[in-house]
Amino acid sequence: MSELAGLIRPDLQGRTPYGAPQLAVPVALNTNESSYDVPPEVVDAISAAVTAEAAHLNRYPDREFVRLRERLAAYVHRTTGCPVSAEQVWAGNGSNEVLQHVVQAFGGPGRVALGFTPSYSMHPIISEGIGTTWVDGLRGRDPGRFDVDADLAVEQVQRHDPDVVFLCSPNNPTGTSLDLSVVERVYEAAPHSVVVVDEAYAEFARPGTPSAVSLLPGRPRLVVTRTMSKAFAFAGVRLGYLAADTEFTDLMRLVRLPYHLSSVTQAIACAALDHADLMLATVEAVKQTRDELVSGCMALGLVPVPSDANFVLVGGFADERASWQALLDRGVLVRDVGIRHHLRITAGTPAENAAVLDALRVVTEGESA
Amino acid sequence: MSELAGLIRPDLQGRTPYGAPQLAVPVALNTNESSYDVPPEVVDAISAAVTAEAAHLNRYPDREFVRLRERLAAYVHRTTGCPVSAEQVWAGNGSNEVLQHVVQAFGGPGRVALGFTPSYSMHPIISEGIGTTWVDGLRGRDPGRFDVDADLAVEQVQRHDPDVVFLCSPNNPTGTSLDLSVVERVYEAAPHSVVVVDEAYAEFARPGTPSAVSLLPGRPRLVVTRTMSKAFAFAGVRLGYLAADTEFTDLMRLVRLPYHLSSVTQAIACAALDHADLMLATVEAVKQTRDELVSGCMALGLVPVPSDANFVLVGGFADERASWQALLDRGVLVRDVGIRHHLRITAGTPAENAAVLDALRVVTEGESA
Repeated sequence: MSELAGLIRPDLQGRTPYGAPQLAVPVALNTNESSYDVPPEVVDAISAAVTAEAAHLNRYPDREFVRLRERLAAYVHRTTGCPVSAEQVWAGNGSNEVLQHVVQAFGGPGRVALGFTPSYSMHPIISEGIGTTWVDGLRGRDPGRFDVDADLAVEQVQRHDPDVVFLCSPNNPTGTSLDLSVVERVYEAAPHSVVVVDEAYAEFARPGTPSAVSLLPGRPRLVVTRTMSKAFAFAGVRLGYLAADTEFTDLMRLVRLPYHLSSVTQAIACAALDHADLMLATVEAVKQTRDELVSGCMALGLVPVPSDANFVLVGGFADERASWQALLDRGVLVRDVGIRHHLRITAGTPAENAAVLDALRVVTEGESA
Repeated sequence: MSELAGLIRPDLQGRTPYGAPQLAVPVALNTNESSYDVPPEVVDAISAAVTAEAAHLNRYPDREFVRLRERLAAYVHRTTGCPVSAEQVWAGNGSNEVLQHVVQAFGGPGRVALGFTPSYSMHPIISEGIGTTWVDGLRGRDPGRFDVDADLAVEQVQRHDPDVVFLCSPNNPTGTSLDLSVVERVYEAAPHSVVVVDEAYAEFARPGTPSAVSLLPGRPRLVVTRTMSKAFAFAGVRLGYLAADTEFTDLMRLVRLPYHLSSVTQAIACAALDHADLMLATVEAVKQTRDELVSGCMALGLVPVPSDANFVLVGGFADERASWQALLDRGVLVRDVGIRHHLRITAGTPAENAAVLDALRVVTEGESA
């Protein structure tokens, strides 16, 4: 080890950075982005917003991002049916930063965060990144299923007495939605915990799937995080947010870096939120593609997990690493999320879906040959 | 205390968020921004860059921000005279985030960061924000002077054996530049420390003030942080960066949140760096205003500290809080940085300078009356 590498925090030594391979491929279905370009009308609105802002970029941004919080509150209200005030909303450069703010305030050294694995792999990375002890909880007793077993979740919460509990619905990388009764039971079982429900993929859920935002009234320790990167098709802008009690969002100011959201990020996000209908126009198409991906995989003898997200976790690969490489050799990049026999595939355009199903056909035939 | 407030980390309890008051005043000289708008030619370049990017904002940014690192390396080379490669550069959403990356990697729970006070108040906030123990070191033995006493610095480094040492040149809030021999001696005295030289205001230094970038070769534990917020007049974009050994920048990947720099931030920063001459055009004017602010304050019987930055720390106020308020009552917002008898005043336009000097004349006459 070099002199310098020997000086980093012991718990970081020997680690490798998080991140999917950034490869130039014809069909990139590995990071759950939207495959649909930003519509021209929104491009125009973005350009106009930045042009209006640009002359004054010598000045610091609005540290309280008031206008953006108003827009996000209206958007949350609209997409969940639950009224939320601007003061109940907090935002950051991607939901990762928002999650980091939560863990900085309520986790940290000597404290415990609990999640139910497999789930979003940044939850432990963010927690440990600022010295929180991470506990890898079990989702259920049947390794072939990925629903959260409420009794088991409650039992683990009581055993580990965590400071922060992570739930994720629809869950990445499995696509599984959570029944709100699980959130309620975990919240009750953990009277000293902040309970995070990561709803990054919520807008893709099947009809009738309620948001945990509906549980916020009377639950000051509950927080629901969301992002503009997925259904809102705005990954390049890095805008994540949360809804919680106003006292909760107030406390975020103790850990955020001042002026963390640039004037440009605020202006662009507002411009896009003013065109939410256009930005969300492809959600139904993506859901249909996802469902076709599920049925297509079943027809190939693979085992897709039912999904409420814009991706499908597909089981049934004899050797998922070999299949990942074989797909890549055919120009299709998917995600090996470290679950044996499984790969995660983003639902893209119909053409991309056809391409991945074609490639899967060849790869699975090769496997069984 | 509420239920929720009782759950945050004990060391955060009772704290108030960092941040200068955001007040709408005719003359805002409290955050060391540039008072000069972004030039129209650069506004056009920014608009064009964002318009080109906007359609593809459905995709995640380049996680490695390769093009931006190349541009920043060229800029550092140009403004310091020291060749620096793209791989030696790292960037974040403001130099605060870059500093946080450094502390996350090398500080953290059970570790110690040392700075020499008064200095940039975010150094302790960032350090403690992720659980690092902060040691408030002394700059010198004479409370009326703000130079760093090299012998005393070495003595404190040896006594506290810190994991991270913060130096700041020109120093905020005093404006004092550091002799490079102090950096060299601190580096030698701290064989297990990362030594940070915060050069946020470097471009305003008087001629002949060398950058610590010149000390990087052969010093893998040295890191120099900079920002586009001050001389580059781009505070609204939130772009800070550092120069260090390539191994050092590699390690930053272990703690950065993936895709931390948005596609828009990268594109806009590149567009502005391509017009560095225009962005830096007002630096000489600001330096002249600063020098006139110093002489104007002296003429009023105040005691300005010699400055290499775009602000002046002015001593000689009988009651700095009362003077701060009296200036604000006259529409002039300056910064009370918590140093008795002193206020920090940003050098703005000649008109703003005249306004602050006029207001100071009334305020100081009122005091002595």
